[in-house]
Amino acid sequence: MATGKKKKETPVILVTNDDGVMAPGIFNLIQSLQGLGKIVVVAPDKPQSGMGHAITIGSPLRLQKVVLPQEEVEAWSCSGTPVDCVKLAVDKILHRQPDLCVSGINHGANHSINVIYSGTMSAAIEASIENIPSIGFSLLDYSMEADFTAARKYARIIVEEVLKRKPDKHLCLNVNFPAVDESLINGIKICRQAYAKYEEDFDERKDPTGKKYFWLTGAFVNFDKGKDTDVWALANNYVSVVPVQFDLTNYSLKTKFEKIFKS
Amino acid sequence: MATGKKKKETPVILVTNDDGVMAPGIFNLIQSLQGLGKIVVVAPDKPQSGMGHAITIGSPLRLQKVVLPQEEVEAWSCSGTPVDCVKLAVDKILHRQPDLCVSGINHGANHSINVIYSGTMSAAIEASIENIPSIGFSLLDYSMEADFTAARKYARIIVEEVLKRKPDKHLCLNVNFPAVDESLINGIKICRQAYAKYEEDFDERKDPTGKKYFWLTGAFVNFDKGKDTDVWALANNYVSVVPVQFDLTNYSLKTKFEKIFKS
Repeated sequence: MATGKKKKETPVILVTNDDGVMAPGIFNLIQSLQGLGKIVVVAPDKPQSGMGHAITIGSPLRLQKVVLPQEEVEAWSCSGTPVDCVKLAVDKILHRQPDLCVSGINHGANHSINVIYSGTMSAAIEASIENIPSIGFSLLDYSMEADFTAARKYARIIVEEVLKRKPDKHLCLNVNFPAVDESLINGIKICRQAYAKYEEDFDERKDPTGKKYFWLTGAFVNFDKGKDTDVWALANNYVSVVPVQFDLTNYSLKTKFEKIFKS
Repeated sequence: MATGKKKKETPVILVTNDDGVMAPGIFNLIQSLQGLGKIVVVAPDKPQSGMGHAITIGSPLRLQKVVLPQEEVEAWSCSGTPVDCVKLAVDKILHRQPDLCVSGINHGANHSINVIYSGTMSAAIEASIENIPSIGFSLLDYSMEADFTAARKYARIIVEEVLKRKPDKHLCLNVNFPAVDESLINGIKICRQAYAKYEEDFDERKDPTGKKYFWLTGAFVNFDKGKDTDVWALANNYVSVVPVQFDLTNYSLKTKFEKIFKS
């Protein structure tokens, strides 16, 4: 029977990550979302940290149904990258665009320049390119035994806020949680991405045949003293939220170069 | 003897790409740079298209000295991603920051959203993060037999313009060449990144044991009708130049969310 008011449909929430479908962080994210929508998980079958926005173009991809601790949730592992997971989920599993894509909860920080290297955030960015509002979540604790209690609470608050509005179709949020007890968290702070980077220092070794090889190591250095950055917010026990865009145009340099290359 | 005027040193130019150290595109880029500086090549030992900003963190990296058609040029192949190449070059080969990093010439377009998936552009972006001015070059022709004549000419013009000024330390330019004869090119146009994306359509097949697998395919769709975009410029036979930034903060959404999450 047609009525003037359309019944509100249950939102479909796609869940992915870059630590792999069996990482505690993704179980905690699913737990935090209980009751907010129909959850479908499509996540890498192995750790994919540091994969950035890589896609698989030279080899085929596989999907495999898996059972998670939350047995009622439909879940798939994918042989590709986090970005592949989003693409495959939309085209071959959901056969539609989900209402929201959430990625994480990553084991380790994705603030500042990490947004560019992060598979967690690249999955979220990919969703936003495809008109799917998205949120990437990361906890500043690399341990597989990390305490996600506060992260779960704040992830749910942020997802609820986004779902109750009609989100911008290109919405993408980069959310990081400080690794402190819930009682110490000062709230949520909207931030800009800090200018920070890694000072590389490759560890040089020799293999048993005497040939050199290198391990990537390096120190994280924050060059940004602003109090409106994600690094500042996290150091001061706030949950940091940076809205992220995929238009990489540097408009101020564009104006400068238009003067140099006058047509 | 000390003089008031400092002698101008030969600039060091790091060359990389994502098609691999033996791709014709990189030979053409080196050829276009002859006489502009000391050239050092560090590029992947195999094709790395679509690797985005991936870095290698779970396994070690190798470097191998190689001889290119331009025998006088110092050249290395690296077992990692394009971004790994930049990091390793600075830390283990140059032992200093080069004055410029150039990447390409890519076999295939890197305009619009491709900037995010592209290993070519991710290498250039990595350099700009590390305070090394950088330029990524791509030709709209995937063929290994592509004609790089016009690309070489315009690449040199752009590199000369950048070197003769003191470039912004975070300068990063995304340069694309239309696949047309040099006589048809209308000049250089400074652009913004078009909003365009791929409409995925995975090709679903079965392996000999009956199990499904998927190949990524898809159609490129341009949703952006602006005449100030890279897609427009290339369709109109201009060389497109988009200045690129690594601050992904969406400042307009930041303002909006500050109202939603008032501390």
